[in-house]
Amino acid sequence: MTVSPTFTGGSAVPRPDPKVTADQLLSRYLHDQAAEFLRSLRTCSDGDEEAARALRRSSRRISGTLHTFRALLDAGWADQLRSELAWLSGTLGCEHAYAGRLERLLEALGRLAESTPALPGPRAEALRPTPAVGAARAGALLDRQLTLARTRAHSAALQALGSSRFHAVADAVALLASEVPFGPAAAGYAGSALPPAAETAGRKLAEAVAALPLHRAAHPYNAEALSDALDAPWHQVRLLLRLHRYAQEVLGAADDGRPALDLKLFGAGQALDHHREAAEAAAAAAAAARTPRIATATAYALGVLHADQRHEVEAARYAFQQSWQRTAVTAP
Amino acid sequence: MTVSPTFTGGSAVPRPDPKVTADQLLSRYLHDQAAEFLRSLRTCSDGDEEAARALRRSSRRISGTLHTFRALLDAGWADQLRSELAWLSGTLGCEHAYAGRLERLLEALGRLAESTPALPGPRAEALRPTPAVGAARAGALLDRQLTLARTRAHSAALQALGSSRFHAVADAVALLASEVPFGPAAAGYAGSALPPAAETAGRKLAEAVAALPLHRAAHPYNAEALSDALDAPWHQVRLLLRLHRYAQEVLGAADDGRPALDLKLFGAGQALDHHREAAEAAAAAAAAARTPRIATATAYALGVLHADQRHEVEAARYAFQQSWQRTAVTAP
Repeated sequence: MTVSPTFTGGSAVPRPDPKVTADQLLSRYLHDQAAEFLRSLRTCSDGDEEAARALRRSSRRISGTLHTFRALLDAGWADQLRSELAWLSGTLGCEHAYAGRLERLLEALGRLAESTPALPGPRAEALRPTPAVGAARAGALLDRQLTLARTRAHSAALQALGSSRFHAVADAVALLASEVPFGPAAAGYAGSALPPAAETAGRKLAEAVAALPLHRAAHPYNAEALSDALDAPWHQVRLLLRLHRYAQEVLGAADDGRPALDLKLFGAGQALDHHREAAEAAAAAAAAARTPRIATATAYALGVLHADQRHEVEAARYAFQQSWQRTAVTAP
Repeated sequence: MTVSPTFTGGSAVPRPDPKVTADQLLSRYLHDQAAEFLRSLRTCSDGDEEAARALRRSSRRISGTLHTFRALLDAGWADQLRSELAWLSGTLGCEHAYAGRLERLLEALGRLAESTPALPGPRAEALRPTPAVGAARAGALLDRQLTLARTRAHSAALQALGSSRFHAVADAVALLASEVPFGPAAAGYAGSALPPAAETAGRKLAEAVAALPLHRAAHPYNAEALSDALDAPWHQVRLLLRLHRYAQEVLGAADDGRPALDLKLFGAGQALDHHREAAEAAAAAAAAARTPRIATATAYALGVLHADQRHEVEAARYAFQQSWQRTAVTAP
């Protein structure tokens, strides 16, 4: 087996069927994603969470494809649609994100409260820092704040779904199911026109990963993630990993119509999802601690919770490093 | 090389010179430790920290030897001297422990405060949870509380050093330099009389380690050490590891007069020292959070600090597991 000279995160760029043209292959992929998008659209306004997730999933894939293969498309149109899809995904994803964040924080608080043993005796009880009370109050505070944010996000999503802006996006996506405005380069064979763009996505990912402090992340308990000051490069890798995965999907879809799931990249991506969720949960705990007039027991519990979630951020970096290393080592 | 059938934490029990009797060998070791003890004694009352450390070090070795080879000694005398040495070590060690704890906590607070980036802009500044202020206040609070505890410990140590109880211990140790009250079994050859007791110490250690959740500890970020409810078995292994090391020293000292330092056991022991220090620092942070009328920013910082130190406890368990595994794998 020969190793592809271009590093693509452990997965060689699949070579599409040489008889298919680039526009045919891209059309097929975008058509499938647009169909999924429109199918989800019909049910997600009823509050169907799975449909909303599917809508965001196809929206991300369409957007990623427009980005990676921009040179083969009408660039102005692609940029415009991407920005509208970002608005839509963002608006529809907020509610879900707040719900997930609250769930994560309450679960962590439960774990932390459970792990605080009760001291025996009434005197000891009176001397306790009442961590259980603090945890319960912190939970109630976070519940109020994140439920309010979630309700607002829900209203915003409903408003968005009824807006003319939304209908314009839906129309543009519907067009993908029938005709995509290609540029002249898309008339070439898929096997020669698509891989360079996919390789660029892989290279950008590899470069961004190379700039991460992976050597530190490989040593557990490095206390490297105490601060959120250095989260951004990891969030960026998360986005580049997605773009790379979607590009692989586009090319891989040529063989049997269904994109192959690259389990190694999937694991690395999941670690980065956890990284972002934990980072945002930690920020929410810190924000809650800024609420005026909270009790000291509440503030203490929020401090513990913040540190716990930053610890999870560190754990996610370790998990990513482990996943990525496996990816690199077993590259074909 | 043959593997000793008795597991002794990775180090085979050294066989002493067959021509030496048990009482000769024990006398030699106890004599050296007693000399060190008495030498340190002369300077430690002047506040010489290194001397106090040396005093505790020899005191632990004498006590451990009396415990492990109790069957070869006048048991009543050995038990009595051990309990007096424990009192002395405890009294003299307190001041140092408080100083170390404060240093550890202030260092952690510094690290935590440093890692909190300042947001730009005056409005953002006003909205901050002022973590730097909270950390500074928490540091000042811990400084007050632990310095007070340290000062009290210092007075108690000075008082102890002037007491008749202390002079009685010093006299008893001085006696070790000349004559040790042996039992009849100590007249036998060292090669047959000492190893069984040393092997018992090794077996007790191995059994206690086997009961630890090492499999969990081997997976970093297991969140197993959130609570202090399960610290005790680890603290117990720390003591058993010391007894084992000292027993090895007694036997190993026969060859060239100087005990060999077993680096692997030393690493495992250090991890357990860190384990205990972090656990006690976490408890001190939690205790400080119980101070009435502290600001919420202070409580928040103490919560972060508590979680940080429990995180260090988890890290120490991981480090111990790694050390121990190496010890077991490379056993001769």
